[in-house]
Amino acid sequence: MAAPINVALIGYAFMGKAHSNAYRQVTPFMSPRREPRMKVLCGRTQSRVQAAARQYGWEEAATDWREVVARKDIDLVDIATPGDLHAEIAIEAARHGKAVLCEKPLANSVAEAQAMVDAVDAAGVVHMICHNYRRIPAVVLARQLIEAGRIGTIRHFRGTYLQDWIAHPDFPLVWRLDKAQAGSGALGDIGAHVVDLARYLVGEINEVSGHLETFVKERPLPDGKPGRGTVTVDDASMALVRFENGAIGTIEATRMAPGRKNANRFEINGSTGSIAFDLERLNELEVYLEAEDAAVRGFHRVLATEPQHPFVKSWWPPGHIIGYEHTFVHTIYDLLEAIADKRVPSPNFHDGLRNQQVLAAIENSSTTRQWVSV
Amino acid sequence: MAAPINVALIGYAFMGKAHSNAYRQVTPFMSPRREPRMKVLCGRTQSRVQAAARQYGWEEAATDWREVVARKDIDLVDIATPGDLHAEIAIEAARHGKAVLCEKPLANSVAEAQAMVDAVDAAGVVHMICHNYRRIPAVVLARQLIEAGRIGTIRHFRGTYLQDWIAHPDFPLVWRLDKAQAGSGALGDIGAHVVDLARYLVGEINEVSGHLETFVKERPLPDGKPGRGTVTVDDASMALVRFENGAIGTIEATRMAPGRKNANRFEINGSTGSIAFDLERLNELEVYLEAEDAAVRGFHRVLATEPQHPFVKSWWPPGHIIGYEHTFVHTIYDLLEAIADKRVPSPNFHDGLRNQQVLAAIENSSTTRQWVSV
Amino acid sequence: MAAPINVALIGYAFMGKAHSNAYRQVTPFMSPRREPRMKVLCGRTQSRVQAAARQYGWEEAATDWREVVARKDIDLVDIATPGDLHAEIAIEAARHGKAVLCEKPLANSVAEAQAMVDAVDAAGVVHMICHNYRRIPAVVLARQLIEAGRIGTIRHFRGTYLQDWIAHPDFPLVWRLDKAQAGSGALGDIGAHVVDLARYLVGEINEVSGHLETFVKERPLPDGKPGRGTVTVDDASMALVRFENGAIGTIEATRMAPGRKNANRFEINGSTGSIAFDLERLNELEVYLEAEDAAVRGFHRVLATEPQHPFVKSWWPPGHIIGYEHTFVHTIYDLLEAIADKRVPSPNFHDGLRNQQVLAAIENSSTTRQWVSV
Amino acid sequence: MAAPINVALIGYAFMGKAHSNAYRQVTPFMSPRREPRMKVLCGRTQSRVQAAARQYGWEEAATDWREVVARKDIDLVDIATPGDLHAEIAIEAARHGKAVLCEKPLANSVAEAQAMVDAVDAAGVVHMICHNYRRIPAVVLARQLIEAGRIGTIRHFRGTYLQDWIAHPDFPLVWRLDKAQAGSGALGDIGAHVVDLARYLVGEINEVSGHLETFVKERPLPDGKPGRGTVTVDDASMALVRFENGAIGTIEATRMAPGRKNANRFEINGSTGSIAFDLERLNELEVYLEAEDAAVRGFHRVLATEPQHPFVKSWWPPGHIIGYEHTFVHTIYDLLEAIADKRVPSPNFHDGLRNQQVLAAIENSSTTRQWVSV
Repeated sequence: MAAPINVALIGYAFMGKAHSNAYRQVTPFMSPRREPRMKVLCGRTQSRVQAAARQYGWEEAATDWREVVARKDIDLVDIATPGDLHAEIAIEAARHGKAVLCEKPLANSVAEAQAMVDAVDAAGVVHMICHNYRRIPAVVLARQLIEAGRIGTIRHFRGTYLQDWIAHPDFPLVWRLDKAQAGSGALGDIGAHVVDLARYLVGEINEVSGHLETFVKERPLPDGKPGRGTVTVDDASMALVRFENGAIGTIEATRMAPGRKNANRFEINGSTGSIAFDLERLNELEVYLEAEDAAVRGFHRVLATEPQHPFVKSWWPPGHIIGYEHTFVHTIYDLLEAIADKRVPSPNFHDGLRNQQVLAAIENSSTTRQWVSV
Repeated sequence: MAAPINVALIGYAFMGKAHSNAYRQVTPFMSPRREPRMKVLCGRTQSRVQAAARQYGWEEAATDWREVVARKDIDLVDIATPGDLHAEIAIEAARHGKAVLCEKPLANSVAEAQAMVDAVDAAGVVHMICHNYRRIPAVVLARQLIEAGRIGTIRHFRGTYLQDWIAHPDFPLVWRLDKAQAGSGALGDIGAHVVDLARYLVGEINEVSGHLETFVKERPLPDGKPGRGTVTVDDASMALVRFENGAIGTIEATRMAPGRKNANRFEINGSTGSIAFDLERLNELEVYLEAEDAAVRGFHRVLATEPQHPFVKSWWPPGHIIGYEHTFVHTIYDLLEAIADKRVPSPNFHDGLRNQQVLAAIENSSTTRQWVSV
Repeated sequence: MAAPINVALIGYAFMGKAHSNAYRQVTPFMSPRREPRMKVLCGRTQSRVQAAARQYGWEEAATDWREVVARKDIDLVDIATPGDLHAEIAIEAARHGKAVLCEKPLANSVAEAQAMVDAVDAAGVVHMICHNYRRIPAVVLARQLIEAGRIGTIRHFRGTYLQDWIAHPDFPLVWRLDKAQAGSGALGDIGAHVVDLARYLVGEINEVSGHLETFVKERPLPDGKPGRGTVTVDDASMALVRFENGAIGTIEATRMAPGRKNANRFEINGSTGSIAFDLERLNELEVYLEAEDAAVRGFHRVLATEPQHPFVKSWWPPGHIIGYEHTFVHTIYDLLEAIADKRVPSPNFHDGLRNQQVLAAIENSSTTRQWVSV
Repeated sequence: MAAPINVALIGYAFMGKAHSNAYRQVTPFMSPRREPRMKVLCGRTQSRVQAAARQYGWEEAATDWREVVARKDIDLVDIATPGDLHAEIAIEAARHGKAVLCEKPLANSVAEAQAMVDAVDAAGVVHMICHNYRRIPAVVLARQLIEAGRIGTIRHFRGTYLQDWIAHPDFPLVWRLDKAQAGSGALGDIGAHVVDLARYLVGEINEVSGHLETFVKERPLPDGKPGRGTVTVDDASMALVRFENGAIGTIEATRMAPGRKNANRFEINGSTGSIAFDLERLNELEVYLEAEDAAVRGFHRVLATEPQHPFVKSWWPPGHIIGYEHTFVHTIYDLLEAIADKRVPSPNFHDGLRNQQVLAAIENSSTTRQWVSV
């Protein structure tokens, strides 16, 4: 049995819960060559991090991330904090020679992201950014079809990520609506996923025209505090984009679309076929192929739960669907295998930086009212 | 220009409106070799039949169907009355050597249906039953795929026709709920369509186990008359069926399925593929083919609006959908062509008789609580 | 019986067929107060216009539109030619005091469109632009819901019109790909519909950032002529838009989306609900309402075939769907009623001009690479 | 911290994997009052059960189930073996005073099922049958809506469970196709789920007319053995059913429906609404309510991922879907809570017996060709 990979996870909120689950599930379902050992969970509040560690199955709880990333017995530092802490932790972890996994968006600014890339490159450590949607079986299938030329030359990308949780003007001013902590709003939080998928599936974006909008400019303070505060991030963003390979596209992210709970959707049109996806039905991929005989040509609803589909054979028989958190298990599996091989997996900090540059260009374009090169 | 075919239509209610439209539209869109001439519309009430004739474009109105079917200048008698008049009119029309089109179900009993078959056979006239759903492009496509062996040996048929217009117990006791006029309820009205499609797509049914149910046994009298009357037909029917070719199936018809407005649906499973259809989306056919490559195999949504799909090139470019009444235009076109060729088209009175026998077997089985041979 | 409205239709291709059908169907189904009389069909080629007139039911055929629009016995001139003739014919018809219906886009330039508006205003005639999708029952329902405040303040519009008929690079260089005749490509042909629906449903657009793309720059000459020619219009266009009322949106049109045959789709998000539509399923509207109880809240699939839905009671019972051409029947009905009332219906030439200004702004922005005011 | 519940799981194949996962996940996600302790996994083959125990996180492996169920330190015996062992193990476990969870179908015969019920009743132990689909959030929501009277009096149930894994005649003769081990084929394996859901959602079934079919009567022997053997179970079954409360229904199960991977579907029509479900999209429920206002009435697609939906708040934010195995986590949670409370949860062995009686009646009716009372 190969030595386990000792993990320290920083952050125990939504993403901390999802990452913890991935470490717990990856061995029983996917049998990585080097298994993860859930060593230490780190967070700010002693009592809460202890409770979380116990609940999620971590051996220890800690409150000082600097101590944790310096520990000799830690191999992998997993950063699941708000964006304003990403750079500092990642750079310190790299300095200590740790493999680093970081939640998206990589940082709250391009400068920070660049510093992180420099740090992991200099340290020569394994690094990865957690864009878990790259490891949905249906999404990997989309990429395989594109790479195999099944839809020809790509011409159009149409990506939206629609949610509705702040549609009501009385939804409070939580940290995700504060630029200092979150960096940006819908754009960085969910638009980042669309940008990443666009790059994964189509190619590099080199020019954008963007617009950011804050529909509700003031909101009640959170946690029952009296009064209202100013929203400092975008509620919604939209952009036209041009890809290096000649394709064109639209990218949109909003938290103001009632009824769309998690509608990370894309459609890609190539010269000989099309592909469409919706995260709310993540086990399915819609595929249209010009090459098929005309009488029965039409969009297929591919239920990507067959053993030949990516990652699926680790789970259940055909038609037994998987859920949201499985995408993290796949991500962690690929990271563990990369660490075992001492190679940098994809997407990594370089992708995170490039994504950040695209997001910055969209934000910049929204101000200048012109197309901006990335 | 070939001589026109002079038409007399008996009945001007729902079906009369649909048939009138078909005669009006068939020439501009489908150019039959012999065009129909809308000669006379016949109905019981003078003032109303005159108004309808004017509205729908008939040259004359008449109230005595016996006179009409005896007219020298009539080539085709089209029967769109309630079922209790079908036999008498059809037999008389055949006796006068007219081509006859009859609405479904062919008659209110097997004996009547048999007499109608005998009459048209003896007279040697062209005859057809109006099962218009056999001429939906997507349905004809289904048949073509089956005949080409694309889904292999058929094993399962699953047919339902669901409506909801009498779900409320205060819906009044209209003529369709009266056995004397309508013959039967959901079974004969809409179940007849499912039986006909089953025979068209799969083959002959030779054994059934059926059940009829009347959930609401009394209803208010119609037209504002005081009091309530007894419902003498079924609200719903269901049956297990076995086909001559070894396939098995379920057939169901109900007017008590809230939200299902016109859900004439079927699914057919063969040894190497499946086909599914829903009348509420009649331009679409779902097709699954085992022969396709595994990565992208899935149900296709075929939008049956391409020029190579049956009947479509008469209408609009791809993606411009057609509606309910177009199925009658296709039916009338095929009838006119058959008359021009002096041949009996399909489905005809023999089909109507066979359908009636299946319906009778279902009703019979519902009483005996046993399987019944057709 | 009121005097009929005598119609002259100029053009007998795709749109000529659709308009002819509308005049033929409007009386039997919708009973306008003043019925249309299909007086004369006008086209360039004598033999073909005669054949078309006979086929579609016009009393006469003619080849000189100037003579036709000057005829005393013509009340309504309906223009269904390519765009380069719209202005000249419409202005002449107005000068002769005729009511004018014009296909979209109103003209090939803003200047032409302005001249047309000036002409009809000066002449005081009834005028209408044929944006038939404004009269789909589901689309009118969408507008009614918005006007009733059911989805609150509108924040997002997301409109695409996707087709695929020129995706193959060997599709020939037909007139629609020639700027001189067609004015523009996907933008003017189908993007015009999206712009019109955006204005109908959301409000005026006052700023745009657009991009036009021609993926296939040369194509084989049409009608079997040897050699290739240059495509002078856009294959695809996309734009970000801002509305006067604060909403934002994306508008896209392409003829290069394999499998999308007629995907005129929109989604609208308001503060308290959302609405979505797809022309390939034009009988349906998806509606989400925050006001509903949480347990069952979700997008409704409204089958807009109930008697209380707009225009439906003229056709068939619930669940019996209508098709593409019905939208023209509704349009002609409303035009005939407006003529009877001597009032200008909506959308009219003012809408056509405004639409044209938006299209021009998108095209302009595509050149300047900046946001452009409309 | 309350004492843990020590679990012994018998069987480590498909169901063993699913149950193991449930014990592993229930604590981190659902915090039962008494946590499960994964004490011992039991199977026939020493090396394989040891590997499985390690992989799935069990403390010990064992090969003699009799020893295991007699152990003092075991509180709960979970039976996930083929059906021919259920009765023996369950009875022995009850005799030793253990709580018992048993996979479905409860047994291979009504007699065995009755003996199991007698045993658990006599021993006074907690018992449960693992019909995990009763704990899909959307399915529980369906039941809540029915209980609240939202769809009125139930009239129709339409349940199918369609799979396709033995559609090809060369699929080998695995144990599930052998009556001695499996008891029955599609009927007992997946039809049992439909029967259970029908009883859960509608009520008791008291009369059936059934038909069983074996389309492929001989198949290659498994594991590469030469020759072919006889299939001794049904490939497909179908039945008409009548419920005690007056509703009627159809129940169908087949493994011969190409493209249907796991189509456990039902539709229920009440007097004032309808509900539909499909396991391949298990996060969704379709709901139609007559009570809604007519303009927007239509089937809702309820994404049952909101905190107010059953079980959901343990998992992820809205729109982040769950998968197949989550249904076992919910089941185990409810079992653990019942054990903590010393009460018998639902569904239990009494349900298993009743389900078995319905299945037996269907099989019986298939032989007698008559309706059979349950």
